[in-house]
Amino acid sequence: MIAEASSDAVPGSLVTVYDRQGRVFGTGLYHPRARVPLRMFRHGEEPFTEEDFLVLLDRAVELRLQLLHLPEVTDAFRVVHSDGDGLGGLVVDRFADVLSVEVQSLGVWQRLPRWLAHLHRRLGTRREVIEVTDLAARVEGVPRQAPDAAVRPVKIREYGVVYEVDFAEGHKTGFFCDQRENRLRLARLVQPGQSVLDLCCYTGGFALAAAVLGKAGDVTGVDLDEKAVARARRNAHLNQVRVQWVHCDAFSYARQMQRNGRQWDVVVLDPPKFVASREEMQEGLKRYEDLNRLAAALVRPGGLLVTCSCSGLVSEEMFEKVVIRAVHKQSRRLQILERSGAGPDHPVWSACPEGRYLKVLWCRVW
Amino acid sequence: MIAEASSDAVPGSLVTVYDRQGRVFGTGLYHPRARVPLRMFRHGEEPFTEEDFLVLLDRAVELRLQLLHLPEVTDAFRVVHSDGDGLGGLVVDRFADVLSVEVQSLGVWQRLPRWLAHLHRRLGTRREVIEVTDLAARVEGVPRQAPDAAVRPVKIREYGVVYEVDFAEGHKTGFFCDQRENRLRLARLVQPGQSVLDLCCYTGGFALAAAVLGKAGDVTGVDLDEKAVARARRNAHLNQVRVQWVHCDAFSYARQMQRNGRQWDVVVLDPPKFVASREEMQEGLKRYEDLNRLAAALVRPGGLLVTCSCSGLVSEEMFEKVVIRAVHKQSRRLQILERSGAGPDHPVWSACPEGRYLKVLWCRVW
Repeated sequence: MIAEASSDAVPGSLVTVYDRQGRVFGTGLYHPRARVPLRMFRHGEEPFTEEDFLVLLDRAVELRLQLLHLPEVTDAFRVVHSDGDGLGGLVVDRFADVLSVEVQSLGVWQRLPRWLAHLHRRLGTRREVIEVTDLAARVEGVPRQAPDAAVRPVKIREYGVVYEVDFAEGHKTGFFCDQRENRLRLARLVQPGQSVLDLCCYTGGFALAAAVLGKAGDVTGVDLDEKAVARARRNAHLNQVRVQWVHCDAFSYARQMQRNGRQWDVVVLDPPKFVASREEMQEGLKRYEDLNRLAAALVRPGGLLVTCSCSGLVSEEMFEKVVIRAVHKQSRRLQILERSGAGPDHPVWSACPEGRYLKVLWCRVW
Repeated sequence: MIAEASSDAVPGSLVTVYDRQGRVFGTGLYHPRARVPLRMFRHGEEPFTEEDFLVLLDRAVELRLQLLHLPEVTDAFRVVHSDGDGLGGLVVDRFADVLSVEVQSLGVWQRLPRWLAHLHRRLGTRREVIEVTDLAARVEGVPRQAPDAAVRPVKIREYGVVYEVDFAEGHKTGFFCDQRENRLRLARLVQPGQSVLDLCCYTGGFALAAAVLGKAGDVTGVDLDEKAVARARRNAHLNQVRVQWVHCDAFSYARQMQRNGRQWDVVVLDPPKFVASREEMQEGLKRYEDLNRLAAALVRPGGLLVTCSCSGLVSEEMFEKVVIRAVHKQSRRLQILERSGAGPDHPVWSACPEGRYLKVLWCRVW
């Protein structure tokens, strides 16, 4: 689509884009070797300047602080959600006084010092942990970051539950704040004393919300990632609650419990992304179906199943169909109370609705 | 599908259903002239009895009271949501001490005295208002109910906002409790002093939540239904807030305000069902698009658009596409914060997912 570039259009720079007729089309960030060589930031004559990036950062901060009032309930939230905030290539999570940053392009990398200084001022944060995506490093030549040993794990608080976030061992930016409102919702649906199983519990998010806020009586968290389970165990100590942590594959664990005839009042299923590419669709949907069939069998009649998918390629409709099919195969039925997604600090930009990824179904299982 | 019926299978009765091989298939409610002549309540040998209906009612009540704790926040909620509670043909809303009932089949009608007595005991309600759907009256021969003049309007309270529900003049069962959680969500997103426009405001639900709970400074509610506007005005008095009520068609009002260059911080658009049948799909989607285009033009840059569709035939994906198209035609963009639906007291049964109808998009408009 790009016919020619002038010699001063160096990788990572803001360039004016002209159409075939030589009229100004708009302003974008340019990188000849990137998968998206031109990321448009403004259409039309009016130029988009370096200052305008700061306006976009301010809008992102305004959403979290003035509109959503997130600091009233937590010190862990997403500050910039890439395209969802009109800032494609940049993801920033705030954890206490640390900004955890994911850099996805050279243009973002080059501007990061100024942007981070700006965000620190607005948010009152002081330190940063920077991660460069593999693609940005390989294709756009962004220097890879050595893990910063100086930033030790930090404690964050979400609706009164304390979690420790370790930047060295974490997935993505260290902690999944996209499930925040869903963790609260779970806690509200759990009745004191009930039994809760958190399948694929990672560092214990749902399990701890159920135990601490929901006053669940008997909570079990299962994950295959040994480090995550260790972190979950420490998180339980931090909150002074007792949870049974099991280092095990969710499929094996669920099969074994089904054979034992064990059932729970509440089962949460939040597996990793089973469909990361179109090629994995069929196999991934099969895995969702299998795991949901197993999970549903572990819910007592009338109990709650909370089932998630973070595969962006799987639509909400598709996911719901797969879950329903799985449960019907067990000759059971679902009473679907609600569907939800990522929290509103993970917005979707209307020009790229494919940014939506998290789907959560809230069901009573009969 | 029904080959023959024994002579004791009278309209409205619970019958045992046999398959071609003469094996028991299950138990259902039977009416030879109904659109659904056989509504199955249980599959398999084990008979479904009159007592089992009471078990279904108990499960429905348990969801609202024990799981959702609705009485802590309101005395207006849906108690039975037809198929969503496994009780196809029956809708019951609770408004203070009144049960507002919609009867959709003869089988339900015949059992109503016993079921209502059961519900009154569980809920502590004392009176009822019964409405028979036109179809049930014409096709199944359910006697039409004269409006019960003895049941005067009742005051209900939802998250601290007071509304008066008038059974004589109301749509459906008198008040839309399906938007309860969305009204609260709106109130939380409105900033004190902001201006709010509620297009198609009916009896003022969103407008009042914004004024009372959200402390909005300048609230306007618009509806074409004169009685609804009068009711909305009385509701504002009840809550001692000032709202500007306009008796006008939403399309005309929005066009006029667009010409005047008027904009609001927040615009809520909750129109009536534009697509009530497959034949109305094209025309209805066009109306959604037109009205959303107008509504988006009335939102100041960075302001909030809350747009709803209650057409069950329009999927969430379809609705979102229409809204995005409408807004893009205005050369504006949406930052979609969330999608939501009816509250969890309006569940969907997995065997009939077509029961889902309400869709709400929460967007910042740029």
